[in-house]
Amino acid sequence: MSIRIGILGYGNLGRGVECAVKHNPDLELKAVFTRRAPETVKILTETAKVYHVDEAVKMKDEIDVLILCVGSSTDLPVQTPEYAEYFNVVDSFDTHARIPEHFAAVDAAAKKGGKVAMISVGWDPGMFSLNRLYANAIMPDGTDYTFWGKGVSQGHSDAVRRIQGVVDARQYTIPVEKALEAVRNGENPELSTREKHTREVFVVAEEGADKAKIENEIKTMPNYFDEYDTTVHFITEEEMKRDHAGLPHGGFVIRTGKTGWNNEHNHVIEYSLKLDSNPEFTSSVICAYARAAYRMSQEGHTGCKTVFDVAPAYLSSQTPEELRAHML
Amino acid sequence: MSIRIGILGYGNLGRGVECAVKHNPDLELKAVFTRRAPETVKILTETAKVYHVDEAVKMKDEIDVLILCVGSSTDLPVQTPEYAEYFNVVDSFDTHARIPEHFAAVDAAAKKGGKVAMISVGWDPGMFSLNRLYANAIMPDGTDYTFWGKGVSQGHSDAVRRIQGVVDARQYTIPVEKALEAVRNGENPELSTREKHTREVFVVAEEGADKAKIENEIKTMPNYFDEYDTTVHFITEEEMKRDHAGLPHGGFVIRTGKTGWNNEHNHVIEYSLKLDSNPEFTSSVICAYARAAYRMSQEGHTGCKTVFDVAPAYLSSQTPEELRAHML
Repeated sequence: MSIRIGILGYGNLGRGVECAVKHNPDLELKAVFTRRAPETVKILTETAKVYHVDEAVKMKDEIDVLILCVGSSTDLPVQTPEYAEYFNVVDSFDTHARIPEHFAAVDAAAKKGGKVAMISVGWDPGMFSLNRLYANAIMPDGTDYTFWGKGVSQGHSDAVRRIQGVVDARQYTIPVEKALEAVRNGENPELSTREKHTREVFVVAEEGADKAKIENEIKTMPNYFDEYDTTVHFITEEEMKRDHAGLPHGGFVIRTGKTGWNNEHNHVIEYSLKLDSNPEFTSSVICAYARAAYRMSQEGHTGCKTVFDVAPAYLSSQTPEELRAHML
Repeated sequence: MSIRIGILGYGNLGRGVECAVKHNPDLELKAVFTRRAPETVKILTETAKVYHVDEAVKMKDEIDVLILCVGSSTDLPVQTPEYAEYFNVVDSFDTHARIPEHFAAVDAAAKKGGKVAMISVGWDPGMFSLNRLYANAIMPDGTDYTFWGKGVSQGHSDAVRRIQGVVDARQYTIPVEKALEAVRNGENPELSTREKHTREVFVVAEEGADKAKIENEIKTMPNYFDEYDTTVHFITEEEMKRDHAGLPHGGFVIRTGKTGWNNEHNHVIEYSLKLDSNPEFTSSVICAYARAAYRMSQEGHTGCKTVFDVAPAYLSSQTPEELRAHML
């Protein structure tokens, strides 16, 4: 019998989960819950239905895992605890600094309902976090480096769009190759923000807009751009659609460290991702953890879990015997 | 209180574990057990003692985790089950094809004794296996590639040493850069053995030996060299000591896969290791899993485990709260 999946929220991430479910024969999409009028939401899966979000709790016995695909900043802090009481849930809460309080709220709700709730699942937080943990546990004496990109930052793109005279914008975060090489060579560099990443912005401006002023506003924007070397390109709406429609991303987690009685040996552990579609990859990670949430719930686990708490075997559709025989 | 570690077998791996214990303040080396006369074995840790292996079982209450640092081919299949009845143990059994039978024997012994036994811990099997599993669970539609090197293969070095006229030999396995690039570019190549790796051999020959004959014997040796492009260099004993004393290794685990409703997006997940010392890195992985074995035993787990069965949080000396706050 397949694991019955519900999706709450049908934006880029929700659609990504729908696609990922299709790639996993042991998962089955049962329902999409939306805040919009259900009849206005067209989904791809013919065997699933769209419901208003107010119907969700009534369907708790028909859904094995509910995947929350709403915003991290204001929606998940409310909705993950709300639904964790009724469903096994997975979210991709990514406000690193607020994870401890989110964990506490979700843990209380999930324990009250006897459910498993996986939070902060994706690639960062998620796979990058896992790789930081493994590398730190293996090499206690070492240094961590995380680089992001090349990829689209939605937050930075949105920030540029709010500038007067900007019609559309796409911001790419780009790791500095020279810095990456120094890290890989074990040079153990201390890198400033500016030395690690550059930013490249493509802007469609209103007709007659003051491009020099827009460029200056971007480059000096506090927190978002002022600490970086930023390049700004003005392009047409057609070029934006043709060349910048995707949401690629990726990055690198590197730990360099020493072993030996007198620290005489150097080692480099590197994990990297090169992703055509950030939301679809995030969704693919989420689906593996949905499988784990279901299995752990079946075994009687309850409460909030992160990627740190999940034994890897739970993620695979293969049995432990198959994994040992073919993947170890 | 620290976790009390015992080491059984004091070769390259045993010495590596001793060094790794030094790097982990929550671990403490209590004893080294050897088949040699204990007084002939000098260890580096002043606070630990050397005993004959026959004394090991008597000391079962003074050791929290016994790390087995003996040979994979004939020693571990006997000794891991033997000691798993009395100790929490960790081994680095690396005969991939025989893992299922080793697991069964160790599992029975560990369950009988109420202990936790971790097998096949290291980097391959070990960290590479984990990365294969994670990447497969995330992207069910994809292709796996594992490349090894550049690094010293002890098995191939030994095989060359057995050729008549060879005094010493060191064999390096080298991944083919062009193949690696094709994989990273998502070209999904089908690669023959010859296309993935080359082999480079450094040989010290006896005076007057027939070098052409040695070179031919190496290059045509079945299983070891005949399917590879091999380069042979004859060097002096001094050059061997000066340039080839280390045991570097490493490699790459790459999975390329597709997501999207019509498989329209490509992704590359890559994990790589660049290691100055193969045995010291393996030992560092083993020590993290020794911590996990102890903790899982304290929580009442028993039986044989592999890296697939261990939730990552068990590996770190940090608390779950610290991990969520700083590493997620």
